[in-house]
Amino acid sequence: MPGYPIAASDRLVQPAQLQQRVRGLFERRGMGPDDAGLLADTLVSADVRGIHSHGVLRVPDYLKKLTSQGVNPRGRPRVVKDSGAVVVVDADNAMGQVACQFTMRRVMDRADQTGIAAAAVRGSNHCGALFYFAEMAAREDKIGIVATNALPTMAPWGGRAKILGINPLAVAMPAGEEPPVILDAAFSASSHGKIRVFHQKAAPIPEGWAFDAAGRPTTDAAQALDGLLQPIGEYKGVGLAIVSGILSSMLSGAAFGTELGNMVDGPEPGADGQFVMALRVAAFVEVEEFKRRVDGLVRQIRTSPAAPGFERCYAPGELEYLTERKYRAEGIPLNAETLRGLDLAERELV
Amino acid sequence: MPGYPIAASDRLVQPAQLQQRVRGLFERRGMGPDDAGLLADTLVSADVRGIHSHGVLRVPDYLKKLTSQGVNPRGRPRVVKDSGAVVVVDADNAMGQVACQFTMRRVMDRADQTGIAAAAVRGSNHCGALFYFAEMAAREDKIGIVATNALPTMAPWGGRAKILGINPLAVAMPAGEEPPVILDAAFSASSHGKIRVFHQKAAPIPEGWAFDAAGRPTTDAAQALDGLLQPIGEYKGVGLAIVSGILSSMLSGAAFGTELGNMVDGPEPGADGQFVMALRVAAFVEVEEFKRRVDGLVRQIRTSPAAPGFERCYAPGELEYLTERKYRAEGIPLNAETLRGLDLAERELV
Repeated sequence: MPGYPIAASDRLVQPAQLQQRVRGLFERRGMGPDDAGLLADTLVSADVRGIHSHGVLRVPDYLKKLTSQGVNPRGRPRVVKDSGAVVVVDADNAMGQVACQFTMRRVMDRADQTGIAAAAVRGSNHCGALFYFAEMAAREDKIGIVATNALPTMAPWGGRAKILGINPLAVAMPAGEEPPVILDAAFSASSHGKIRVFHQKAAPIPEGWAFDAAGRPTTDAAQALDGLLQPIGEYKGVGLAIVSGILSSMLSGAAFGTELGNMVDGPEPGADGQFVMALRVAAFVEVEEFKRRVDGLVRQIRTSPAAPGFERCYAPGELEYLTERKYRAEGIPLNAETLRGLDLAERELV
Repeated sequence: MPGYPIAASDRLVQPAQLQQRVRGLFERRGMGPDDAGLLADTLVSADVRGIHSHGVLRVPDYLKKLTSQGVNPRGRPRVVKDSGAVVVVDADNAMGQVACQFTMRRVMDRADQTGIAAAAVRGSNHCGALFYFAEMAAREDKIGIVATNALPTMAPWGGRAKILGINPLAVAMPAGEEPPVILDAAFSASSHGKIRVFHQKAAPIPEGWAFDAAGRPTTDAAQALDGLLQPIGEYKGVGLAIVSGILSSMLSGAAFGTELGNMVDGPEPGADGQFVMALRVAAFVEVEEFKRRVDGLVRQIRTSPAAPGFERCYAPGELEYLTERKYRAEGIPLNAETLRGLDLAERELV
């Protein structure tokens, strides 16, 4: 669950303004207006939910990717295989967001006929926060499931070779009066981004977050950045990451783990893959009954007593939903570094 | 990964003999020969892979369930809804193993036509180790995914009310020359069974396994048994358990969490639910290409260097596969308590 501190140097930015500004940057980099608008919307949607690690902080990096040697700003995903309730998509080296939106739309349409449908995507790139695409399904009374490949930052359990990604998974489930249940999580205990923040502050990282380069647990942020992310639940998290990664890459011919690249040189453009699935609730049970029960669970969690040191419990995605309500009303607090990144990008693109 | 110590009092038992003996017990309890054989096979298959927590240790408990007030030994699962690539199954209060085998068979057949197919099961009961049903799919060049509901033993993250199950998930993926990739894991760091073993030995449990009844982390096994299981990865494991549980119960009308019962009184007979899915690899990519890549990953993991304190790395399911090879050749080491349970059950059933 996100919980970034709000610093005195943070500035409040209106989501609509931010979206427009970022969209303009991507358009100037050669993207069509719709794709630029989508990419901007996915980033701002992450910021608005408090998930700043996947917000407009990424703009400078994305602009760097969108060059003639890199990601194709005009890439057009297309279905290359279609059988029954399954499609395979070639993303044409577009940004992963463009590929994921295209693919989730097709998978949802197919699930309208078949109840469940799935797609594997190849020729793709970084796709940002996954919840955005899973939530598309929840808005149509479907369960959305999206997984992606990631650059290798973990070792197999008991190992020290950086050969596995943290390959995140997002699931969104429609509720009735309550916010949808939305899980969006990588299978590591933490992330490089969070460890970098501790490193900048010269603070030790919590136990359980990282191993050093030799595979030993460490709380030293510098050694952690040089080393490995720890999985959640030891071999369980590793296994989940492997499964998520195989679905996201080997069902379409996308790159897996070390085939994708490394954290120093970044990913091979167009080598990434995703897995996208939608289940139409009405194919299983009455939609109203399902939503009533999800509502009941969300309320049961919300009203359940807190443990010492906690204020209350949240259903998956509830804290982000509350953050979104607040930030949409009051503006998104963005830190100085993120704003400087946007300013610099703007100047470079003139 | 399992790693039960082999005690001097353990006795080696031949898998075929054990299967026959356990099958006989279930037949005498009123099950038909096929269902009794399946139930015995699932339990022995767990023991043979070293997963004794889900092996024949469960026989006395299962026999107790199979009474006139409990699980129906003659329950016949049937499809109650069928649309496109989705079916809903009513298990008719049969053992969950009978329901899961029935359902996976149907889902695999459907996936032969549609590429992917899924089912939600209601009216079910405890289904044992999930890998058994996921592996059915892998043997037919499909990816098998199975999830189940479980009795509530966890709290929401930051809470102390026992309202969530550890709702395990199994995924099996076909390989070529290597053993299939098989993940079978609950979303708790440990299990009640393991904590009970520490309690019997009056030993402290590892950190990260449990909370006491007030929701505070504890290493005291007695307090842990009175308290809560800890999820893997804090809120991530809780979220995964919630998602797995919703798929397993709310898509079919089965009970979720506290609706299912509690650990003291056990589950409501016929209230349990499962989620079963199969993806035909050939609907996505060439099967041989997929298997070649899975083989490559298994070998990359196996040959990757070990961290201090570890001997080597294993792909998911590889250690269990090696255990199976050993136990099939040499016999399964069963402890005195498990054997006594079988002896007692035999005497009671005469």
